[in-house]
Amino acid sequence: MNLNFNERYKNYTDIINKALDEYVPERECLQKNIIKAMRYSLTAGGKRLRPVLCLATAEILGGSVEEALPFACAVEMIHTYSLIHDDLPCMDNDDYRRGRLTNHKVFGENMAVLAGDALLNRAFEIMLDACIKDEGMETGTGKKLYNRIKAMGLIADAAGINGMIGGQVIDLESEGKTISPEHLAYMHKCKTGELIKCSIMSAAVLNNADENDYNCMKSYAENLGLAFQIKDDILDIEGNFAVMGKTAGSDAANQKSTFVTLYGLEKSKAMLREITDQAVNSILKLGDRADFLRQLAENLANRNN
Amino acid sequence: MNLNFNERYKNYTDIINKALDEYVPERECLQKNIIKAMRYSLTAGGKRLRPVLCLATAEILGGSVEEALPFACAVEMIHTYSLIHDDLPCMDNDDYRRGRLTNHKVFGENMAVLAGDALLNRAFEIMLDACIKDEGMETGTGKKLYNRIKAMGLIADAAGINGMIGGQVIDLESEGKTISPEHLAYMHKCKTGELIKCSIMSAAVLNNADENDYNCMKSYAENLGLAFQIKDDILDIEGNFAVMGKTAGSDAANQKSTFVTLYGLEKSKAMLREITDQAVNSILKLGDRADFLRQLAENLANRNN
Repeated sequence: MNLNFNERYKNYTDIINKALDEYVPERECLQKNIIKAMRYSLTAGGKRLRPVLCLATAEILGGSVEEALPFACAVEMIHTYSLIHDDLPCMDNDDYRRGRLTNHKVFGENMAVLAGDALLNRAFEIMLDACIKDEGMETGTGKKLYNRIKAMGLIADAAGINGMIGGQVIDLESEGKTISPEHLAYMHKCKTGELIKCSIMSAAVLNNADENDYNCMKSYAENLGLAFQIKDDILDIEGNFAVMGKTAGSDAANQKSTFVTLYGLEKSKAMLREITDQAVNSILKLGDRADFLRQLAENLANRNN
Repeated sequence: MNLNFNERYKNYTDIINKALDEYVPERECLQKNIIKAMRYSLTAGGKRLRPVLCLATAEILGGSVEEALPFACAVEMIHTYSLIHDDLPCMDNDDYRRGRLTNHKVFGENMAVLAGDALLNRAFEIMLDACIKDEGMETGTGKKLYNRIKAMGLIADAAGINGMIGGQVIDLESEGKTISPEHLAYMHKCKTGELIKCSIMSAAVLNNADENDYNCMKSYAENLGLAFQIKDDILDIEGNFAVMGKTAGSDAANQKSTFVTLYGLEKSKAMLREITDQAVNSILKLGDRADFLRQLAENLANRNN
């Protein structure tokens, strides 16, 4: 069956949304309110960019969606927890996210802190479950299990102080300051880039990508992450609430340095074009099988939310 | 070399403190302040009860301290992150912990949230590193690797919504309410018991404990966790700031149900004695090699902080 890009993207998000729903099931228990809080943010939709990248990479490299799915969903849980904590009054103090009230506005600050913690923890639980449940893993050769551990390790590193959390710290401490282009680039590499990259590279590791495929994917992933952030900064100026689901201009309100404040709107758009081209060209060697990822890079550059 | 209890305990804590220091090294980088915040709480001392339990169990079962160390330290990181988040103004709003200002009083609320997140994340990073770094693991049989994954799985489950985080939620939602003995017991099993239990059971899994040893350790662990919490509740009434390093009576101030509010002081002390005896008796079958854990249970029941 030959699916066009949109059909394939929707297929992936349907699989992801169903799995996320099942990984954090509602149930009657004394701690049911934290489950509600976790689910409120986890099932709020969004692009599901990171897990889609993971599943698509797995398929492109000849692997299965099923094996990659826990890793894809773990990355989405980590992304979601970071949004909940970012939105807290002591952080960016945002009232809206994806067009809905933020988690702490609905469940209270204490529950929002814990719901974020629980989603990070749950991300590791589901990856570990995926390692443990395979029958025969215990007595067979460790290769397949080892690949899963390496994939989990990439995700853990990308989420930590040299990745997402580190980027968030640098972001907070850069507010109100004029920062250098290198500082801005490093901040975004950490804050957004690493988690996007690990979505792709975890799938590459799971599926034993050969050196050529691995390097193509790595270059694609790094360029895509950077392009994604430049576009985000452009949208923060040009976007509007109805389409974005959050308040445009919040970077300016928080006195944040962005690609637009540093380079201006025109230069930022030219950079976005150039880096998107680099992402697309990175995977030319992979041939037709990588069409989906090329189209995805183009769509991200042209998105309006 | 025959060490007495105190010497052996100090040996363990020296090893643990050195490892914790090395797992989160200070370094010059843009995100150095979060490293400072992580280290502030991680190196603040404390009993190191959980990692000591892990290392002692490993040795009692014939395993090595070295192999158990990343898992022991991971549990301590998880315990530490939970304290940082528990102390936040939106949670218990505590100003002091272990005799020092709480993390958010020193580094600000935003950094305290992120330092907690980063410690949880780092816990998984160091366990995963321990799995990945072993040479030959990839091509050899998966048994040893599989045991590590299972140990990590126990720790992840104990830290999640059916363990520590779940207990914290139940605790928050129980404030100002009169709760049943079953409710209180379940809350503490989740909030404190599971993490203490996994400290012991992760070491049992790592070292292929046979069924008899496994069940002895499980019973010990469950009773110890409960006794620990009853003693905590007693100390919250009878302790004093100079010894405790935190304000006594904070449970009452937060209108929390405790073993003491539910059963009274005398009955709570009798329960503590009985459950400590059960913990000690659980591991009689293990013989002399388990002396350290029996002494530990007695010391915990008699501690004054």
